[in-house]
Amino acid sequence: MRPYFAETDATHDPARRSWVVSANEPDTDFPIQNLPFGVVKGRRAADLPGVGVAIGDQVLDVATAAGMLPDHFADAEVKRAVDACMQPTLNALMALGPGPRRALRHAIGTILDAAHPKAAEHERALAHALVRMDRLDCLVPVRIGDYTDFYASVHHATNVGSMFRPDNPLLPNYKWVPIGYHGRASSIVASGTPVVRPHGQRKGPQDADPVLGASRSLDYECEVGAFVAHGNTLGAAIPLSEAESHVFGLCLVNDWSARDVQSWEYQPLGPFLAKNFATSVSPWVVTSEALAPFRVPLAPRADGDPSPLPYLSDASDASHGGVAMMLEVRLQTTRMREAGHAPHVVSRTRFTHMYWTMAQLVAHHTVNGCNLQPGDLLASGTVSGPTPEERGCLLERTWRGAEPLALPGGETRAFLEDGDVVTLAAWCEAEGARRIGFGTCTGEIVAAR
Amino acid sequence: MRPYFAETDATHDPARRSWVVSANEPDTDFPIQNLPFGVVKGRRAADLPGVGVAIGDQVLDVATAAGMLPDHFADAEVKRAVDACMQPTLNALMALGPGPRRALRHAIGTILDAAHPKAAEHERALAHALVRMDRLDCLVPVRIGDYTDFYASVHHATNVGSMFRPDNPLLPNYKWVPIGYHGRASSIVASGTPVVRPHGQRKGPQDADPVLGASRSLDYECEVGAFVAHGNTLGAAIPLSEAESHVFGLCLVNDWSARDVQSWEYQPLGPFLAKNFATSVSPWVVTSEALAPFRVPLAPRADGDPSPLPYLSDASDASHGGVAMMLEVRLQTTRMREAGHAPHVVSRTRFTHMYWTMAQLVAHHTVNGCNLQPGDLLASGTVSGPTPEERGCLLERTWRGAEPLALPGGETRAFLEDGDVVTLAAWCEAEGARRIGFGTCTGEIVAAR
Repeated sequence: MRPYFAETDATHDPARRSWVVSANEPDTDFPIQNLPFGVVKGRRAADLPGVGVAIGDQVLDVATAAGMLPDHFADAEVKRAVDACMQPTLNALMALGPGPRRALRHAIGTILDAAHPKAAEHERALAHALVRMDRLDCLVPVRIGDYTDFYASVHHATNVGSMFRPDNPLLPNYKWVPIGYHGRASSIVASGTPVVRPHGQRKGPQDADPVLGASRSLDYECEVGAFVAHGNTLGAAIPLSEAESHVFGLCLVNDWSARDVQSWEYQPLGPFLAKNFATSVSPWVVTSEALAPFRVPLAPRADGDPSPLPYLSDASDASHGGVAMMLEVRLQTTRMREAGHAPHVVSRTRFTHMYWTMAQLVAHHTVNGCNLQPGDLLASGTVSGPTPEERGCLLERTWRGAEPLALPGGETRAFLEDGDVVTLAAWCEAEGARRIGFGTCTGEIVAAR
Repeated sequence: MRPYFAETDATHDPARRSWVVSANEPDTDFPIQNLPFGVVKGRRAADLPGVGVAIGDQVLDVATAAGMLPDHFADAEVKRAVDACMQPTLNALMALGPGPRRALRHAIGTILDAAHPKAAEHERALAHALVRMDRLDCLVPVRIGDYTDFYASVHHATNVGSMFRPDNPLLPNYKWVPIGYHGRASSIVASGTPVVRPHGQRKGPQDADPVLGASRSLDYECEVGAFVAHGNTLGAAIPLSEAESHVFGLCLVNDWSARDVQSWEYQPLGPFLAKNFATSVSPWVVTSEALAPFRVPLAPRADGDPSPLPYLSDASDASHGGVAMMLEVRLQTTRMREAGHAPHVVSRTRFTHMYWTMAQLVAHHTVNGCNLQPGDLLASGTVSGPTPEERGCLLERTWRGAEPLALPGGETRAFLEDGDVVTLAAWCEAEGARRIGFGTCTGEIVAAR
């Protein structure tokens, strides 16, 4: 039996099409089965940010749509969700939990449905509620109170560990404790924001003393982020069986990292300045409802691995805790852009390679009573798989620079150089379901100041 | 020459007395020379939180005072500060930076001054602006965006290191890098909030597997917190010479810690669930202006220690970067309370024992472009000194439980037990200056749920 968070309904019907024709293109990330939420802003000075839903190459302004077609938004649950959209972040909508969010999804799916008897009327009514995405700026959609970054890929942890601690790559706690740490919320930026190469202390093994300078080993990390829906009271844990209901949805996260700073600073309290100069997030939050058709188990653990402790283990999580999500990292250098080379796919990996599910991360995070709040961001950590092509950061992909990447046009890369543009992309596919995508999360490295 | 942040003026005159008579008691923490800011709330349901200034055993409501004596608040800088106080947190006041804050301090000092020609008139006018502190609840005074915890006591780092890594107590980066990590902002609570004993994974060296259970080695950490005034733009570092101007003031912080959880979880990314279940802060923020008479150098570094890198070094910081502040930890068990024993002083230490100044922590935190925001909290890490009596947490004080503390009434303590109340207190004294205090930061351990 599928658990509640994997149940599908009419909104997932792969045959459903929208009268927004771009939403019916086979390769769109935003068909009518997706309906992710974001916060967008027009480019005139007077434009205010507002909550939108991506549909094809358009964005539906939720407040305007509800005003134009009030009958479809009259239900009490839907009304609560629409009211929560009357602000420039998704926090209030997230705080409502799954009921109103799901009701709003149904309402929006209905008014955009090409097969609805009044589709033509809806199209006319919503003419001013739809704006082309390329005419809008997408903002960080959430006021993020706390940002937690996990380390939930055993492949990533093993690869990194074997570089930093060759004799002891995977620490004894790894297969018991979902390792995580607190990141910096203030420096989370929207996709497209340039990333300034950071200064920091570094000290090579041969150097007598450290020096301060611009990082020489700047890296990306390809991660998946979960936004918290309703929170929990300080002191009260969220049991695993309820953890999925606290996840609003997923986005892409690039946790930019300065590896030279990291290796010198990180002991004993973990990464700090190596990470907190910038973290990019994708603009569209794909809801848990949209992900329902893609819920699968994680890849099996290695023989002999311990079973998770009881607070991290239940049957629904074991059978459907993962998401069948492909992730891709693309790199384009200045010279590639100038020579007309398309962004180069550096790696492609699966979110099912993770060692812990998002629900396990939520249950672990709160087992001590730590309070999550609506809009908090929990990132997975770098998503890496077992093969070199599935490694989600350059540190692993080039094995600390020892095996530089060959790029179109003859360049190579050990770490990122100024002008490099990194783009993360992701999508979900499953038998019998319409493919949905996450859009992209992108950033260009600019020279140190 | 004293740098600007150590300059004194009429507000520091030790001879100045207030017509609020309790402010003239020799042992009050809040004489007219202090004037710390907080956010308080009456206990009727209709009472709203508001910005107050502590004076003796009273709290002055800033908005009411400005309304009653408008002539004293007419200056443009003072007006800006008063306007910023019209909200239930100190964030807006912090964001203004030092100028308006200093102007408001002068105005409040003037209207409370017993020697002012119109003192009697002021006392009559402010009758409804003053409320006894014990009739108010003190809230967390700031909406804290990000909380960073440092590790800036070399004595603490050496003690803890020698327990966890006997062969390698102080890591090679310690004397170069002000080590810090991101803490959890959501679980920062007001002084007086009970602290629920957290659950977590623990694994003793003899245990085959970890278990989940209530922590058996719950600890306090006696720290000093700095609130950020105006922030910096992402990508733009704050140089050391400007770092002091970004510090609004100081408070007390108790970074409660579950040592058994910590020792099992902390590698390789640092403490997480061992810390994020609760952090208590004292209600009154003692401003940088109030601290001016107490600015001193830190205790000298050990012979042979490296000089700080240039971005962490300047003459003003070297001569006046420290604060002559005494810290005290008091413990009272349930049985002590029942038997009428006063809280027992467990340790007493000096903030000048730190290895890095608050300004150095600010400069380091931003050297990579990380953006600080008004109201962010930077804590010092446990303040420990060279002697056993100066150790700021039980882990050190009892040497991981090996040397339990003897308490009045015959009890002993290795770590905290349910019902124990921990109180932090602090004060500043200097030749030629009126003593000022920080009030207290307190919390009682309650049983695990």
